[in-house]
Amino acid sequence: MPDHAISPTRREDYPEWYQQVVRAADLAEQSPVRGCMVIKPHGYAIWERMQGVLDRAFKATGHQNAYFPLFIPVSYLEQEAKHVAGFAKECAVVTHHRLELSADGRLVPAGKLEEPLVVRPTSETIIGAMYAKWIQSWRDLPVLINQWANVVRWEMRPRVFLRTAEFLWQEGHTAHATAAEAVEETLRILGIYAAFAREHLAMPVLEGPKPAAERFPGAVETYSIEAMMQDGRALQAGTSHFLGQNFARAQGIKFADTTGAEAYCWTTSWGVSTRLIGALVMTHSDDDGLVLPPRIAPTQVVLLPIHRTDEERARVLEACRGLEAALNAVRYGDEPIRVHIDARDIRGGDKVWQHVKLGVPVRVEIGPRDLAAGAVSVSRRDRGPRERVALPLESFPAAAPALLEEIQRGLYDRALAFREARTVRVADRAGLIARFADEGATGEGQGGFVITHVADTPEVAAVCDPLKVTVRCIPMDGPDDPGRCIITGQAVQRPSVLARAY
Amino acid sequence: MPDHAISPTRREDYPEWYQQVVRAADLAEQSPVRGCMVIKPHGYAIWERMQGVLDRAFKATGHQNAYFPLFIPVSYLEQEAKHVAGFAKECAVVTHHRLELSADGRLVPAGKLEEPLVVRPTSETIIGAMYAKWIQSWRDLPVLINQWANVVRWEMRPRVFLRTAEFLWQEGHTAHATAAEAVEETLRILGIYAAFAREHLAMPVLEGPKPAAERFPGAVETYSIEAMMQDGRALQAGTSHFLGQNFARAQGIKFADTTGAEAYCWTTSWGVSTRLIGALVMTHSDDDGLVLPPRIAPTQVVLLPIHRTDEERARVLEACRGLEAALNAVRYGDEPIRVHIDARDIRGGDKVWQHVKLGVPVRVEIGPRDLAAGAVSVSRRDRGPRERVALPLESFPAAAPALLEEIQRGLYDRALAFREARTVRVADRAGLIARFADEGATGEGQGGFVITHVADTPEVAAVCDPLKVTVRCIPMDGPDDPGRCIITGQAVQRPSVLARAY
Repeated sequence: MPDHAISPTRREDYPEWYQQVVRAADLAEQSPVRGCMVIKPHGYAIWERMQGVLDRAFKATGHQNAYFPLFIPVSYLEQEAKHVAGFAKECAVVTHHRLELSADGRLVPAGKLEEPLVVRPTSETIIGAMYAKWIQSWRDLPVLINQWANVVRWEMRPRVFLRTAEFLWQEGHTAHATAAEAVEETLRILGIYAAFAREHLAMPVLEGPKPAAERFPGAVETYSIEAMMQDGRALQAGTSHFLGQNFARAQGIKFADTTGAEAYCWTTSWGVSTRLIGALVMTHSDDDGLVLPPRIAPTQVVLLPIHRTDEERARVLEACRGLEAALNAVRYGDEPIRVHIDARDIRGGDKVWQHVKLGVPVRVEIGPRDLAAGAVSVSRRDRGPRERVALPLESFPAAAPALLEEIQRGLYDRALAFREARTVRVADRAGLIARFADEGATGEGQGGFVITHVADTPEVAAVCDPLKVTVRCIPMDGPDDPGRCIITGQAVQRPSVLARAY
Repeated sequence: MPDHAISPTRREDYPEWYQQVVRAADLAEQSPVRGCMVIKPHGYAIWERMQGVLDRAFKATGHQNAYFPLFIPVSYLEQEAKHVAGFAKECAVVTHHRLELSADGRLVPAGKLEEPLVVRPTSETIIGAMYAKWIQSWRDLPVLINQWANVVRWEMRPRVFLRTAEFLWQEGHTAHATAAEAVEETLRILGIYAAFAREHLAMPVLEGPKPAAERFPGAVETYSIEAMMQDGRALQAGTSHFLGQNFARAQGIKFADTTGAEAYCWTTSWGVSTRLIGALVMTHSDDDGLVLPPRIAPTQVVLLPIHRTDEERARVLEACRGLEAALNAVRYGDEPIRVHIDARDIRGGDKVWQHVKLGVPVRVEIGPRDLAAGAVSVSRRDRGPRERVALPLESFPAAAPALLEEIQRGLYDRALAFREARTVRVADRAGLIARFADEGATGEGQGGFVITHVADTPEVAAVCDPLKVTVRCIPMDGPDDPGRCIITGQAVQRPSVLARAY
């Protein structure tokens, strides 16, 4: 048995470690279509759990789901020049609506479309066109709609979950009568994203507005949640955009207010994607593979029967089924505990290591000796893979919720401590440069997060660009903390977080 | 007030009635992209409920969800000649991966792909390619995977929900070691579809195999569930295909059996789509609009407060909230009753008619006089729109589940009686022709279902084609019922159902 189930380790080759963790956990793989991934059942089960939690939060705040077309006429993109500049460049273009068999037996495109269609890279323009039809009066507002969908952005250097040509996401699109309501909505969703990341993914995030250069094309303000991966890089894990009246003007989304006067709506959009799965992998996993926080884990407890004879097998499986029923009857986070009995006939050691690599929070081994002692052997995924504790079989189900919650909180605390240990405050340009210049040389990715005051100006970008660093966001929590920009000397209200990013 | 909320009525113009019911119920509308629909929140909420019920049934029978790429390389379609003939003709073809701004300010396709990609019309080929990689040994079988996805089949004459270029569906794809297991799977899913249609959609369906000409391209056997719409036409509401080893051979899906010998897998595929929403609309709706069976209705009970003064409003709304809480606490079909209070400040009559057209199963009006009498005014969507019954406020929540179930069963019974009244048994060719020739003349669509013995031969098709009739399926329920084909005289084991179809 090697020291670690995953090779290379994080320290040896972080990007390759990530690919190997994804593979060993059977989450996804590249498809034969360049840049498109296949999300395998284990990966998709995690996405379904993410969807479930977020969908409930959206509905609890008055949002409804709907579905808009996959295709967008090219002329729609021409309407919104800024948007085009940001999005329309790399996308899948449909030009024909038929295949015909050629003389040499090949299928060739036929039936050329009068106007090419783009596979949606995001749906602002097509949804805006519908809102312009639907919204007439202040009585129609607010419109609070979310869509779960696939989107496509052609990627030259795809990486599974993090950057793929096709990915799954949700995109919320709302329209309001006033700027204040739209801003409130933008921040409400940011709060939902941040709470979801912290409470369910055990992922500490910083939340705040981004500088102008990092905004969504056409947005007045873009807010993001930013997480730190274990190589010290930032990952933008969700965005919420206040679009002002920019899209409403471009698309004619107007309403008659209570006085009968016509006004443009104020709109927002917001989304998270399957990228979150990549963030989850890189936040918690270790050199033995995936580590899943219990609240998001498709299986929270796996029961591993151990036996040699048929008689032992029957007895142990019966005990497993009893334990499964008892655990299902116990609630953790308002849901029955999710248990799986792995009764496959393979070597016990291999089986244990498979579940380590799958990231199952709690493994419970049950053999004849355990039964005789009225005990179970319990291993936690957040501890060493060979660590086991004998616990009384009888009381284990009742104790399980507290154990799962301890693991959930422990993972959050560990990730938070990691981030804090790799976050420094710098007071001047030299400090900023030193922090990342050093990283560039060793390639070890210990740059982490830098907190400092910077103005939202090209001068700052000119210093950051060669360092491959960006301003991730201006965290909003805590009191104001004014200072002077370390590059331009301008007065700045709050410090920003700078980092290299995915 | 007109006699009916929907114009034209079913009798006046059935196809246009359908469009108007969909519009009045705010289910969906055409988008600016030819053939693509926008599924509005009310329509999508119905789809979400369909998804929920089916997804639980799939998981309860051991299936897992996954996600495969939207795009399929054209060369994959070339592999499977039969499949191509059936599907590849009308589809969206992606030929470029970039848009560039031309000199005259237009966006034009650029970055031509080496190999064109097709937007999936169905995923057999791409999923088969992955299964060929994933499956090595009998230990890997069965593979039981389902996908919820959008698919595109270019349509020249789109009709909302029934025939659209893009639609949403689920497609199950399974691989097995033996033919018997694959057939069992095919029939298990057919049973899930039939039970779902009957129990949740209150839609009577006939289930059975289809004749060769109606099979899915490449399938050994296609089974379907067939429902009768209110114009007497059949609608295929779900299909389950036994693919034999055809796709496995074309794509190299092989496994080593217990002796180590290599064999091709036996595969199945099966699906239902947003077409089911169209079937639901056309099964139950009347000339006042949509009628939703309670089990699938997003809102089961709508509370309509009636008041003139502010004081009345406060009192009535408080009573509504109390009633809402009491109804939420009651379970119908294992879930809390879904209640909505419509407190909008619009004319009471308009509000009532809106909910009639939305198909809400039960409307409850509550005004000061009702409160004084300790009563509520209850209207059922399956009865006349002006029919009301006063029921005691106190006991209404406890009585609600039985009321909803009575409506659910009543709708099923009504649809079944409708189908039976429009189903005839014919004994010879002349009877068949008379039944549909007559329909052709009057255009009233009273052809309905014809039950008779026919062989699966071109001679039968030659008689049916001019009548625009197809063999829908050979119903499997009940004992064998042998006879002789009314066209060819051949011995046939069971009678078929023939009809015009959507």
